[in-house]
Amino acid sequence: MPSLDEFGLIARLFAPLAASHPGALGLTDDAALIDAGPSEQWAITMDALVAGVHFLGEDPPELIARKLVRVNLSDLAAMGAKPFAILLATCFPAGVAEDWVERFATGLKIDCEEFAIALIGGDTVATPGPLTLAVTALGRVPAGSALLRSNARSGDYIWVSGTIGDGAFGLDVAEGRLHHLEEAAKTWLLDRYRIPHPRLSLGWVLRGVATAAMDVSDGLVGDLGHICCASAVGAVVDATKIPLSPAAEAAIATGASIARVLSGGDDYELLFTAPVSVSGKLAELSASLGLRLTPIGQIIEGSGVTVIGADGRPLDLAKSGYKHFGG
Amino acid sequence: MPSLDEFGLIARLFAPLAASHPGALGLTDDAALIDAGPSEQWAITMDALVAGVHFLGEDPPELIARKLVRVNLSDLAAMGAKPFAILLATCFPAGVAEDWVERFATGLKIDCEEFAIALIGGDTVATPGPLTLAVTALGRVPAGSALLRSNARSGDYIWVSGTIGDGAFGLDVAEGRLHHLEEAAKTWLLDRYRIPHPRLSLGWVLRGVATAAMDVSDGLVGDLGHICCASAVGAVVDATKIPLSPAAEAAIATGASIARVLSGGDDYELLFTAPVSVSGKLAELSASLGLRLTPIGQIIEGSGVTVIGADGRPLDLAKSGYKHFGG
Repeated sequence: MPSLDEFGLIARLFAPLAASHPGALGLTDDAALIDAGPSEQWAITMDALVAGVHFLGEDPPELIARKLVRVNLSDLAAMGAKPFAILLATCFPAGVAEDWVERFATGLKIDCEEFAIALIGGDTVATPGPLTLAVTALGRVPAGSALLRSNARSGDYIWVSGTIGDGAFGLDVAEGRLHHLEEAAKTWLLDRYRIPHPRLSLGWVLRGVATAAMDVSDGLVGDLGHICCASAVGAVVDATKIPLSPAAEAAIATGASIARVLSGGDDYELLFTAPVSVSGKLAELSASLGLRLTPIGQIIEGSGVTVIGADGRPLDLAKSGYKHFGG
Repeated sequence: MPSLDEFGLIARLFAPLAASHPGALGLTDDAALIDAGPSEQWAITMDALVAGVHFLGEDPPELIARKLVRVNLSDLAAMGAKPFAILLATCFPAGVAEDWVERFATGLKIDCEEFAIALIGGDTVATPGPLTLAVTALGRVPAGSALLRSNARSGDYIWVSGTIGDGAFGLDVAEGRLHHLEEAAKTWLLDRYRIPHPRLSLGWVLRGVATAAMDVSDGLVGDLGHICCASAVGAVVDATKIPLSPAAEAAIATGASIARVLSGGDDYELLFTAPVSVSGKLAELSASLGLRLTPIGQIIEGSGVTVIGADGRPLDLAKSGYKHFGG
């Protein structure tokens, strides 16, 4: 598989092709923005998922479909956009069963209804390789109000929604690790891994409140590094403030590493920055949405992400796969 | 690989998810239409291409990139839309070479410039399978003027642009068949297979002139069957009228079958219907565009496609893989 350096190369090679369209945001944000009439912009995002890489081939097909949709809607949530349509390209391997396809379509149907979106196009092809899925998702946002990664300012608090690390621990459970955990905790983590909850309502109300936002898909520290790069700032995170679910706390109590929380992905929570002055407003939003919002650190001048551990000293982030994303 | 019946099943399962969005056109047209402001619609299409299925893995990477772009732009041409942006998802296999990626990006760059489009987003992931590429393309069209498949009327002439069959014969050359042909003919056919020419200028001027249109990607007769299905009409095609390139004529003279012209794909010419009264107008358009436009038959009441051979008798289309698409 391509190494991280190869992905960096690809990004460098593709970015110039985006230069003529400012709304492409240099291919570095969660979605591109396109002007659609004088008062509206559309956010558009595209993700590919490969069996054995991004989901497990033996996962229930309904859940594969729903995760595919939700991962893309999470990108729109991070822009503050309201989704309205998706396109789906499916590459089906040899011998795909009719029952499998029916269950996959059922999962799609559930989430198209849940999020009031329509499937408006796409493609179905055969592949000699693993099941491969690509979705393009479209959302609307009032012109000029989209949340970007590039506006974090020194002094802003850094916030996350929900709890962090559940996605990575859920994958651990799915792959047979964390066997010391109680069944209820395992089931809960597995659900978090399989069915992300795109924070669409939160993204919508964060417009005009947050200064920068993205979704946590590749890991908290790496993703925060992206905001720092795009905003030309640094960040200090207090590891003890990172909100953990009881199940994630139990995983750590039974030996799992905090590094998994910092650098594991698949949380699909929103990571955002906001001036200290709106902290009260954010507490109100948290209450009205019924969604935990937690300040975990602060934006500083400089560059890169520093995480302070329980002992007050910086953690060695190189060990957690952070270095590549640092900026 | 999935059989044609499985693709039919998938179409049946996915179509209901499009029901809430009229612009999805029941997932049966070349692209979906979305209202973007009061006077404009956007056509949006998504295609996936898999190495070994839709292109040859050993093809030059520049050409793979350009075909990927052009196949999608051909769908926009068939709607009468002007492209402005693409998104690209790439699934790279193990050990992809830096040089390969650079050449692929060069091909993208050439065609982004050629067609004045920007790459505005996408995704890059790893796959244990073959190189898999998906593109989403966006185009603009004045509201209500897009070319659909559904408006062909009894009595309309059936037209095609350019020449038909070159794509299929080009694939034959690429795979080592047609070795009796002269080198110049082989090279020409191979180019036609590798570098389609999306008929964007033609599609744009056909708005208000043609009654129905699509691009010839899966094979002339099957694609005409799609127009017949969507328009609830039948079609009669005169096989002797189908425009052939000198290279395709040479292929047939050395033993290649006319069935390959009728049912082979990858031509990316436009297939359209128009009232007899605009035939003069179409001759003018042909001259001004420098693009051959040929009437090959007529729309009739009824259903299905009949092809009349040189002896005045209907060809047996079941042999050419037509039956599945008949309608």
